[in-house]
Amino acid sequence: MQVQGKHYRSIWWDEADGCVRIVDQSLLPHQFRTATLRDLGEVCEAIRTMRLRGAPLIGAAAALGLALALRDDPSPAAEESAAAALLATRPTAVNIRWALRRVRGEIAAVPAAGKAAAALAAAQRLCDEDAEICSRIGEHGLPILRDLVKRGTREKGRLNVLTHCNAGWLATVDWGTALAAVYKAHAAGLPLHVWVDETRPRNQGASLTTWELGEHGIPHTLICDGQAGHVLQRGRVDVCLVGSDRTTTRGDVCNKVGTYMVALAAKDNSVPLFAAVPVSSVDFESKDGVAEIPIEERDPREVTELRGRTADGRIETVRLAPVGTPAANFAFDVTPARLVTGLITELGVFPACPAGLSNLQTAMRESAAAPERAAGQAPRA
Amino acid sequence: MQVQGKHYRSIWWDEADGCVRIVDQSLLPHQFRTATLRDLGEVCEAIRTMRLRGAPLIGAAAALGLALALRDDPSPAAEESAAAALLATRPTAVNIRWALRRVRGEIAAVPAAGKAAAALAAAQRLCDEDAEICSRIGEHGLPILRDLVKRGTREKGRLNVLTHCNAGWLATVDWGTALAAVYKAHAAGLPLHVWVDETRPRNQGASLTTWELGEHGIPHTLICDGQAGHVLQRGRVDVCLVGSDRTTTRGDVCNKVGTYMVALAAKDNSVPLFAAVPVSSVDFESKDGVAEIPIEERDPREVTELRGRTADGRIETVRLAPVGTPAANFAFDVTPARLVTGLITELGVFPACPAGLSNLQTAMRESAAAPERAAGQAPRA
Repeated sequence: MQVQGKHYRSIWWDEADGCVRIVDQSLLPHQFRTATLRDLGEVCEAIRTMRLRGAPLIGAAAALGLALALRDDPSPAAEESAAAALLATRPTAVNIRWALRRVRGEIAAVPAAGKAAAALAAAQRLCDEDAEICSRIGEHGLPILRDLVKRGTREKGRLNVLTHCNAGWLATVDWGTALAAVYKAHAAGLPLHVWVDETRPRNQGASLTTWELGEHGIPHTLICDGQAGHVLQRGRVDVCLVGSDRTTTRGDVCNKVGTYMVALAAKDNSVPLFAAVPVSSVDFESKDGVAEIPIEERDPREVTELRGRTADGRIETVRLAPVGTPAANFAFDVTPARLVTGLITELGVFPACPAGLSNLQTAMRESAAAPERAAGQAPRA
Repeated sequence: MQVQGKHYRSIWWDEADGCVRIVDQSLLPHQFRTATLRDLGEVCEAIRTMRLRGAPLIGAAAALGLALALRDDPSPAAEESAAAALLATRPTAVNIRWALRRVRGEIAAVPAAGKAAAALAAAQRLCDEDAEICSRIGEHGLPILRDLVKRGTREKGRLNVLTHCNAGWLATVDWGTALAAVYKAHAAGLPLHVWVDETRPRNQGASLTTWELGEHGIPHTLICDGQAGHVLQRGRVDVCLVGSDRTTTRGDVCNKVGTYMVALAAKDNSVPLFAAVPVSSVDFESKDGVAEIPIEERDPREVTELRGRTADGRIETVRLAPVGTPAANFAFDVTPARLVTGLITELGVFPACPAGLSNLQTAMRESAAAPERAAGQAPRA
């Protein structure tokens, strides 16, 4: 996507220099800088310190990190220890495990001399695929936005989208998930305006989504999470678009905490809410999201403290609450399927219900059997 | 209420020193200090810089400020200019106007020599009355909490209350509104735990409510606003208690922004939500809160910036969003009556519906006719 008028991915292989480059997210939104990762240690460090984050993106980084490790030492022992080091960076991140398994599977039969090159090729394919999946999610979301414009927006002359957290390109290799539809709609000339929930804690909306949209030239307004209900109630939102970290077979959506309250307010005001869902994030093993999905609790300091930039340019962390105030920090919540209008996947849009998810599984089988055909004829539910 | 084991009001007249003293809220929660206000100028400055805030409290401060002004100069011209100066501190605060009208009415017939003393007596009565009203709100709220404990709490051994913003004693002269019931329940030995929404923007929950509860020894846990839905969904809340800045004749509640989303999540999980409503804040002129109540928009910097304390004790303001990010800052929202279980007033608990408000009006007439009797037999709806 665009930064200062130039196209970037959040991670890429620099062919000329033989290294990995990333957008350094730890400095955003206060400073835009790319960083260079030259070996396994630097990739691990970047993931650990969250210079890159977002489930699809850290999977891609791990794949490239393995390729760098094998360039230095293609032995089975080195491959094993590189994989272990990458897994240890974010112990709960399933995407790292998934990406490593995939690359290691593809290079298992390759002799030592060719392993590094094969791993690099596999990692690059994985990156391209992630960008392609997100682009397709955007293409399937676009008609939804186009229809809303056709039927007449609530505020004259602009389609108001509300989003929560950062489901943009910074969480993926390119395009993003929920925001992919916004970027496609902007390119198609739809008159867009995005309400951005600041998304406490961690403030990914305030710091990352606003930055992405601003760099891309898409009109947007930042609000506090508790203000979303008000703008929905006052008829200032046409559609809510959110991401999903995990979606169950009945269509419950587990996403960044606060999504459930957005969905309740959307429903109460008859505003549709769509979750953008890469097929890989559907959990076909779980059904009842509230009963079955364990919710990660994170460091309470994410609630009691905040990091930002002072007027004179220093980055400072400040505490808001009295010293010793107990805080709880639930990272995700579950939005029951009854509040979700539909799931936008790379294979089409499906209703958030058992039948919809079953249709998605059929589409996945067709796509695996004949990838090009299935993608071209993605079912629209 | 209690601070470091000692009883305080948020404002009081120091008889010995002949001055007004306040809890300096601009330093909270990082520092507890009382401040002395010796003349009209110091009172105006304290209101303007928000060393005290909360509608009932700034009314009380204005009343005492007028008494200080008349002590220095009891002439009609001085009285007039003092009133004008106090009104100018917070132009939209109706409580200042109301308090001044009341004190000036009571001293209108008093000769110049006695005006200052009469104004001081009137201001002190006004303060005592505010504390008494809040105390009664707490007494009417207590049986609700007691009943919930009797019927069995959702989590074993503790009654979980969720509150939004600061409807505590710091917003009033003493006791608070929504928190008055919590303080009474704590005194009555009920096993309480309070979930405190941080309440963006301005963070009154994180900075004031946590401090009040902590000083009073009431167990509590701070959460982000978007996390309230999750704790409600997981059965970790028995009742929501919120304040109200303005309540309509059909029971719509206008309160700090975010209250509407809390109410939606409470309803979705069959958790009762009560608004604590001093009778003076009921607007008998309005009916449909969403259609009729204009919502104040405040400085967007309250959304994009935050003030807090660094680890080494400096108070810093930091920005979270990219420079120039547009932000909107709606200060209040309207919770439709259908989401409100009941209104806790100083005259009893009333359902949030036209019949309930009509009963409240009857109770108000009875109370005006025979104050003691009405208060003793407050109707419980």
